[in-house]
Amino acid sequence: MANASDPTDPLVLFMPSGKRGRFPVGTNLLEAARLLGVNIESVCGGRATCGRCQIEVQEGGFAKHGIVSSCDHISPKSGREARYESIRSLPVGRRLSCSATIQGDLVVAVPQDAVVNAQVVRKAASDRLIERNPAVRLCYVEVDKPDMHKPLGDLDRLKAMLTRDWGIHDPAVPLRLLPQLQKILRKKNWGVTVAIHHDDNGARPEILAIWPGLHNKAYGIACDIGSTTIALHLLSLLSGRVVASSGVSNPQIRLGEDLMSRVSYVMMNPGGCEAMALAVREAVNGLIGQVCTESGVDAGDILDAVFVANPIMHHLFLGIDPTELGQAPFALAVSGAIHASAAELGLQANEGAHVYLLPCIAGHVGADAAAATLAEGPHRQDRMMLLIDIGTNAEIVLGNGQRVITASSPTGPAFEGAEISSGQRAAPGAIERVRIDRETLEPRFRIIGSELWSDQPGFPEDAVRLGVTGTCGSAIVEVVAELYLCGIVSEDGAIDGALAARSPRIVANGRTFSYLLHDGCPQITVTQNDVRAVQLAKAALYAGIRLLMEKQGVAAVDMIRLAGAFGSFIDPKYAMVLGLIPDCDLSEVRAVGNAAGTGAMMALLNRDCRREIVQTVQRIEKIETALEPHFQQLFVDAMTLPHKVDSFPNLVKEVRLPPHNEANDGCADSMHRRPGRKKRPTPRWRR
Amino acid sequence: MANASDPTDPLVLFMPSGKRGRFPVGTNLLEAARLLGVNIESVCGGRATCGRCQIEVQEGGFAKHGIVSSCDHISPKSGREARYESIRSLPVGRRLSCSATIQGDLVVAVPQDAVVNAQVVRKAASDRLIERNPAVRLCYVEVDKPDMHKPLGDLDRLKAMLTRDWGIHDPAVPLRLLPQLQKILRKKNWGVTVAIHHDDNGARPEILAIWPGLHNKAYGIACDIGSTTIALHLLSLLSGRVVASSGVSNPQIRLGEDLMSRVSYVMMNPGGCEAMALAVREAVNGLIGQVCTESGVDAGDILDAVFVANPIMHHLFLGIDPTELGQAPFALAVSGAIHASAAELGLQANEGAHVYLLPCIAGHVGADAAAATLAEGPHRQDRMMLLIDIGTNAEIVLGNGQRVITASSPTGPAFEGAEISSGQRAAPGAIERVRIDRETLEPRFRIIGSELWSDQPGFPEDAVRLGVTGTCGSAIVEVVAELYLCGIVSEDGAIDGALAARSPRIVANGRTFSYLLHDGCPQITVTQNDVRAVQLAKAALYAGIRLLMEKQGVAAVDMIRLAGAFGSFIDPKYAMVLGLIPDCDLSEVRAVGNAAGTGAMMALLNRDCRREIVQTVQRIEKIETALEPHFQQLFVDAMTLPHKVDSFPNLVKEVRLPPHNEANDGCADSMHRRPGRKKRPTPRWRR
Repeated sequence: MANASDPTDPLVLFMPSGKRGRFPVGTNLLEAARLLGVNIESVCGGRATCGRCQIEVQEGGFAKHGIVSSCDHISPKSGREARYESIRSLPVGRRLSCSATIQGDLVVAVPQDAVVNAQVVRKAASDRLIERNPAVRLCYVEVDKPDMHKPLGDLDRLKAMLTRDWGIHDPAVPLRLLPQLQKILRKKNWGVTVAIHHDDNGARPEILAIWPGLHNKAYGIACDIGSTTIALHLLSLLSGRVVASSGVSNPQIRLGEDLMSRVSYVMMNPGGCEAMALAVREAVNGLIGQVCTESGVDAGDILDAVFVANPIMHHLFLGIDPTELGQAPFALAVSGAIHASAAELGLQANEGAHVYLLPCIAGHVGADAAAATLAEGPHRQDRMMLLIDIGTNAEIVLGNGQRVITASSPTGPAFEGAEISSGQRAAPGAIERVRIDRETLEPRFRIIGSELWSDQPGFPEDAVRLGVTGTCGSAIVEVVAELYLCGIVSEDGAIDGALAARSPRIVANGRTFSYLLHDGCPQITVTQNDVRAVQLAKAALYAGIRLLMEKQGVAAVDMIRLAGAFGSFIDPKYAMVLGLIPDCDLSEVRAVGNAAGTGAMMALLNRDCRREIVQTVQRIEKIETALEPHFQQLFVDAMTLPHKVDSFPNLVKEVRLPPHNEANDGCADSMHRRPGRKKRPTPRWRR
Repeated sequence: MANASDPTDPLVLFMPSGKRGRFPVGTNLLEAARLLGVNIESVCGGRATCGRCQIEVQEGGFAKHGIVSSCDHISPKSGREARYESIRSLPVGRRLSCSATIQGDLVVAVPQDAVVNAQVVRKAASDRLIERNPAVRLCYVEVDKPDMHKPLGDLDRLKAMLTRDWGIHDPAVPLRLLPQLQKILRKKNWGVTVAIHHDDNGARPEILAIWPGLHNKAYGIACDIGSTTIALHLLSLLSGRVVASSGVSNPQIRLGEDLMSRVSYVMMNPGGCEAMALAVREAVNGLIGQVCTESGVDAGDILDAVFVANPIMHHLFLGIDPTELGQAPFALAVSGAIHASAAELGLQANEGAHVYLLPCIAGHVGADAAAATLAEGPHRQDRMMLLIDIGTNAEIVLGNGQRVITASSPTGPAFEGAEISSGQRAAPGAIERVRIDRETLEPRFRIIGSELWSDQPGFPEDAVRLGVTGTCGSAIVEVVAELYLCGIVSEDGAIDGALAARSPRIVANGRTFSYLLHDGCPQITVTQNDVRAVQLAKAALYAGIRLLMEKQGVAAVDMIRLAGAFGSFIDPKYAMVLGLIPDCDLSEVRAVGNAAGTGAMMALLNRDCRREIVQTVQRIEKIETALEPHFQQLFVDAMTLPHKVDSFPNLVKEVRLPPHNEANDGCADSMHRRPGRKKRPTPRWRR
């Protein structure tokens, strides 16, 4: 084909990939893209019927590239392309690359449809585009009619065309397709569209489905099965666009609120494992129904699916007994990536649809953490990235291109609002932001569902409408941090009862004191026990992070990414004041939303991402905090607000911290001997 | 490992393969066999527990090989081997090759268990042994216990052992096994036996089944689905032995006697295709039940299955509408080999068992013909082999290592006893052998179920007991040949009415004459129409053969193999007298029984046979007789007994043929214009 070395040939540059090469005049543009490794979709195989291969010629001089690009440098619309345009219309400026040839220097834009929709899926890592290279593709072929002289079977002649036109060799064919084949082939005069699954180069490609004529629709789902919520996205495998998203509470909650109670349910109830699997699969089917209805997509056009989940949800989704995950050595039944069929899992999709589950990293670090790692890419960084997903367990990943290590830490449910006196899940009416006046010690707050602070006009009406029902996780971080910044809570976590004299907000509560955040119905207070619960949670997280930093031999991290719902809503500054996360340039601390879901979408849209994460997971070093004798000391040091020994140089540039009480330095443990002290949380809530 | 080039190392020769090599003293014998490519089974992986790796040291001098072999040249029984012997006993002279080391020159016999049992499966081709190399093997492994420091999942550690101990890389694992895995692994202290399916090197290996501890049983079935009869064999995949065989009438007969009426049934009845598939699958399950009961084998230990069938049965077994096969261009829905699962086909076997169907060669030349080709191996010959399987259709294969060609010819049902006035299937009471006295024109015959000729004492009693019910296919060939040799039937096939004066056996029957073979109840006669039917059938077959001989450019064939039930019972001499087959040295004409079944067993026991037949089928040239303008002339010439122009030099050495009537030479067609002439049979009974 085109030999790019002739300097007199036209130069063609594809955007946004920046790939470029020289091709002789007359070279087909789609072919040129392929030769350069630029992925432009085509279902019809260059017959100008599917319209998937659209590109835009960029007009003008591109000095940086030394190219003057012009619409005169591409061949005029051919008869085939004109016919397509007359029937299906072509947006202004768009051309079908399969029908256009190179006539001179060109800068060609591949429309950004082919990049994951930025509104829904954040660009996964700021430094890279998600190129579309899904495991399932559609291939239109025109099969030779039967010939007595060459008595190859219908299927065998179909395979020959797949080899000739698409370079696909001897795909596996499920038995169920064979009885349908004759009619499908003859319906549109031996023209058929074949869905091919080819995940990795080692495995044999497989024919998933066959349609008569040109079938120009292929969808996939990306689903994050959380303990609390199941979130599902429907994406076009042809454009990469998210066409619909939906979420639902995990119905397993009715069989067990937290993960360990679900494990108990399985242990106590024969058939409990199957019931759990069925419940979550039915919920997924419900979501599939919703996104299909919303987008007008036929579930039969769903050809691939990617699931991520924490280890226990991962096992329960697959029907595997999770009991082993509830006790040392926390043995996963399977840690590697899983290939299955939608039919085996009873999912509503094309009968031949495939299912892929990302690998689990360890007994407490699941496929969700792997997906978040894929999305944020610590392994792709030059600088040291800390990636945290905080739930009942916190998954912590720390690393760069050199080395990535991970651990999980049992933070407990405090950050989810549980085991907190007025705690609740994030829902309308929950307090989500808190400020306390340094002088008056009076609070103001915001509740979910209202844009107003509690001291602004109009708030009382919102409060009546929504109720002020409790404190969600992000507010718990803020209120304890504010109490500390005000001096109400000391660095060792004690609510200073002496201040009761200064403010009616500080009230006695048995032998300890509480802070009255909202005097309504219900009354919302922060108790000494609440502060202790937050301290225990943040100490567990920080100790885990610190352990990984020690393993990496770094005193500071360069970037922090907070994943998950909790991570999205906490204010990084308050997280740092509390000592939840280590010191870092605050502009380098970012909430990244449902990074696990983003990773699932990446793995759906690009099979190379599957290879990437499988290889990365094999390289990631797993640290089991329970086996590290040093962890206990790190935990104790982290009980102090923000920390007993670690300094926060970046933080103090922006926030004035109360003075450090050096008297505590020698007797850090003493505070744990006070009444109300809890032992280090056991892993009973580990997920 | 052992470097075979050191001439001072002991020389070891393995029988019957004859493979040999030098190995250092102390080399493990099983390892030496592997290095030479000698397949000795081992399930336990050299732990001396499965007992599958037995060998026998041959004592004495082997001058031809320059080896003096002695039991002193092998290490004495180790503790492990002695323990095995004490528990499970070892036949005298047998040793476990996994536990024995080479101490000097040895001739080692690999027991012939490992060759297909000669009594049931004939050695497929006289020049080769069937080496066992099945697609499914059992691999015992001891899996590492879970380790918090290396949090690989149970399955992943199992896979690691399969790689380390058995060289199996990343097998696919069906989802259904995952929920069972934890218990299976923990039941026998992390020792498990894994059944691996690995058919060809291009495909990924797959785990079919996992058992706790050592599981030392693996079976497969080989099944030939004939239009009339389904024959099934149960074989041990570990020893290669046939452990049980059974057969049953094809239950589809109730939905349509011959193939075309079954096609009609499918065309006329909605759901008829599914009903046909179900009927044959149920029959197969019935046979599986029988062979399992008979041999005490658990159907769950059946891990692989090979099926062969003619194209219509092949399609109906798979649930594919066979209508296209009933009309030009006789398009197969699929011609290549099929990989499926026993579960998809509803077969009673291990849930993970695989199913393999040999490729079909053409629309009328099915997987059964491919299997017969594999068994008899024309493609492995230096000389020209003619392989014929005669049913309602005859499949003809002619070739050698240079080139193989095939055709089918519509012989019609005459050879199966249908469309013959007294014809019947081969069953007790049917006449199977006929002799006619050259002088008296009196017949004598034998019936199936009796060893006696009809003129011997005791025959009347047998006749009373069995009845004399009709004429089976082999007798039809003999009686027409004998009538011709006696001069009762002329070379153009007319029954000579003038002889009615000489013998009461020749009787008028309207405008033609008949020969009275048996004057009982029923009366058994050979009518002029019967002779015509035989002529038409044999002419179709001979013309097909002759066409292939012309394509090959040969005037004679070197070997003839007659496959199938009909081929097994006809006397080659009479077949030649009739001009059913071309002239050939009679000692080179052999009946080979159910060659298709033999081929199925070969494909079951050795996956290389699958590759061999797939490649051979791709190379075989298919001749469609209907498209050959020359065929009609060949057919007309073949109507003459034994042939209008071809001579039979080998035959006339043994049989005195009536003189050729040269008056016919110029007007061969004239005989077809007589009353009773039938047109060339249409392909309506083609199968």
